[in-house]
Amino acid sequence: MTNLAVVGGGVIGLSAAWCAAKAGHDVTVHDPEPARGGASWLAGGMLAPVTEAWPGEEDVLSLGEASLKRWPGFASDLAQEGVAPGLAAHGTLVVAFDSADAGHLDILAGYLHSIGRAAERLTGRETKRLEPGAGSVRSGLHVPGDLAVDNRKLLDALYAACVNHDVRFVRERVETPPDAEAVVLAAGAWTGRLHPQLAGAVRPLKGEILRLKPRRGCLPPPTRTVRAVVEGRPIYLVPRGDQELVLGATQYEAGFDRAVTARGVRELLEGAERVFPAITEYELVETAAGLRAASRDVLPYIGVLDDGVFAATGHHRNGLLMAPVTAAAVVAWLEGEPPPEGVEAASPARLHQKEHV
Amino acid sequence: MTNLAVVGGGVIGLSAAWCAAKAGHDVTVHDPEPARGGASWLAGGMLAPVTEAWPGEEDVLSLGEASLKRWPGFASDLAQEGVAPGLAAHGTLVVAFDSADAGHLDILAGYLHSIGRAAERLTGRETKRLEPGAGSVRSGLHVPGDLAVDNRKLLDALYAACVNHDVRFVRERVETPPDAEAVVLAAGAWTGRLHPQLAGAVRPLKGEILRLKPRRGCLPPPTRTVRAVVEGRPIYLVPRGDQELVLGATQYEAGFDRAVTARGVRELLEGAERVFPAITEYELVETAAGLRAASRDVLPYIGVLDDGVFAATGHHRNGLLMAPVTAAAVVAWLEGEPPPEGVEAASPARLHQKEHV
Repeated sequence: MTNLAVVGGGVIGLSAAWCAAKAGHDVTVHDPEPARGGASWLAGGMLAPVTEAWPGEEDVLSLGEASLKRWPGFASDLAQEGVAPGLAAHGTLVVAFDSADAGHLDILAGYLHSIGRAAERLTGRETKRLEPGAGSVRSGLHVPGDLAVDNRKLLDALYAACVNHDVRFVRERVETPPDAEAVVLAAGAWTGRLHPQLAGAVRPLKGEILRLKPRRGCLPPPTRTVRAVVEGRPIYLVPRGDQELVLGATQYEAGFDRAVTARGVRELLEGAERVFPAITEYELVETAAGLRAASRDVLPYIGVLDDGVFAATGHHRNGLLMAPVTAAAVVAWLEGEPPPEGVEAASPARLHQKEHV
Repeated sequence: MTNLAVVGGGVIGLSAAWCAAKAGHDVTVHDPEPARGGASWLAGGMLAPVTEAWPGEEDVLSLGEASLKRWPGFASDLAQEGVAPGLAAHGTLVVAFDSADAGHLDILAGYLHSIGRAAERLTGRETKRLEPGAGSVRSGLHVPGDLAVDNRKLLDALYAACVNHDVRFVRERVETPPDAEAVVLAAGAWTGRLHPQLAGAVRPLKGEILRLKPRRGCLPPPTRTVRAVVEGRPIYLVPRGDQELVLGATQYEAGFDRAVTARGVRELLEGAERVFPAITEYELVETAAGLRAASRDVLPYIGVLDDGVFAATGHHRNGLLMAPVTAAAVVAWLEGEPPPEGVEAASPARLHQKEHV
């Protein structure tokens, strides 16, 4: 039984704390505002590494797929702790507005078929039949198996599960790693301040996200996640049950600034109106900005930094997706076992291997 | 000394209550949320009847001009009560993007000159010299004398002034006129429910308004109110000191719905970016929707309804502007004197004169 300090109470820190406590360790989480203050509170919640993958991110895709396999078990274990994390297999629809978008969907469909995933290329008319609220789309790609999780229910579920397993919470901001046998650094964009190896290797990547809900007489939200690229900007609409729609997300380098900007809101709304025109009459219930933890190469840093100090940060837009595999890596480390498959590539050891990765 | 009940604690109700109490009457204001809950909390604060006038609203313009003359005295009396209402003579710049807009500015300039007001027609280049942050404008009209008031400071000042004069507050919603020697109905869009003559004559006219502030490195807000019509929609930007900018306002018939819509926010932001491009990097600090009290003919209803019952409602977008003259009309009624000049046209007696005004 190890005395473990986890710095950071977002989805990564809470997942690690819960899994470590369940494995019998004595865990304390340090965070001024656990489950609420970080990027995971503002996430879209898509668990869809393939339709989210960007070119050149193959290691990220592998690690995402490895974590995705763990998600159903992770969610059902969590639900047994008392609070269901809101996992939904409602699928993804990616829509194309022009021939370049359509070409991208052809490639994505081919890739999904090659790995044995169901994926259906649709005409514009078929796309509209699937999601009658879709805008004037040229074609679509339907990925029926894709998972999504309600990020806020998930955080509440993780917090409750931690409490079940006697995890302690210290609601303070940590400037240096706490004194403990083992320390996990999972403070998201702020982790770079906690260890010299991570200084400059983790940076904030700002994102704005909106929440909307249909007013009386409005078309209900789409029944699945809808994604598109509008004027070069990726956009997603994720339904949260019938009554809320999460619309994200911008992506900027803006330091630790968390202001919601006029531009971000306007661009998200413009893009969403193209994808799903009925949204124009929806109520805008929340505007927010958060800071993703960006690494130098989009892969997170998951692994040992020093004796007794473990990095679990730099997850970019993949924190929710990769929480199960990251938590499993923390537990493996505590138990002296090798890391789960796919995690090796994310070792922070790569920070020493080249000056510029 | 009359026992007076004022229903409504917005700018009209509080102005009437303060002036009546100052004149020696015994006043109670009935409002679940005085100074905060109504349309005046969300106003832009322009006191500029001329640059705001719409064709066919001559009586409104006369009444607005009559009230405008009272504003400097009203503001200085109010400041002497302890809280300054934030009156600024920072002027208005109306900008034109096309020849139709420019033609409208020519007419407006001609009218202002005819009534002896200073007003300067500017080329695009001169407009940019006056407000370097203005967008690609064709020409402009500068009205240097125009007043604006900080609506929130004004409401705080009126509330404080009421307290100074022993006005009582009953923080409850009123369904029928309270029992009192004299009653003023000033419940804005909700006033129609309080008297049969006003049923159907006062309706809510929804408006959305945003507040923004410059982030570090942003161009500061314009130094005066800037107005324009963008794609047929009137828009205004009103600076509140250096650090905040009020951006308004949409106008819809939507019943008592107070939801901020995606469309409203998007249209305001798009319009503002055209008028003042630097706003795109501003922080969006508040989105809100309120309900103006609309009459059938844009003129308010100011006058006697029944023995002992006085209407002070239906001010549309002119509530702040017309508060001094409306309050003066209430005091004149209590004193048995004739109403101030210009108010006669606003008498609710016109509701009987024609079926459809």
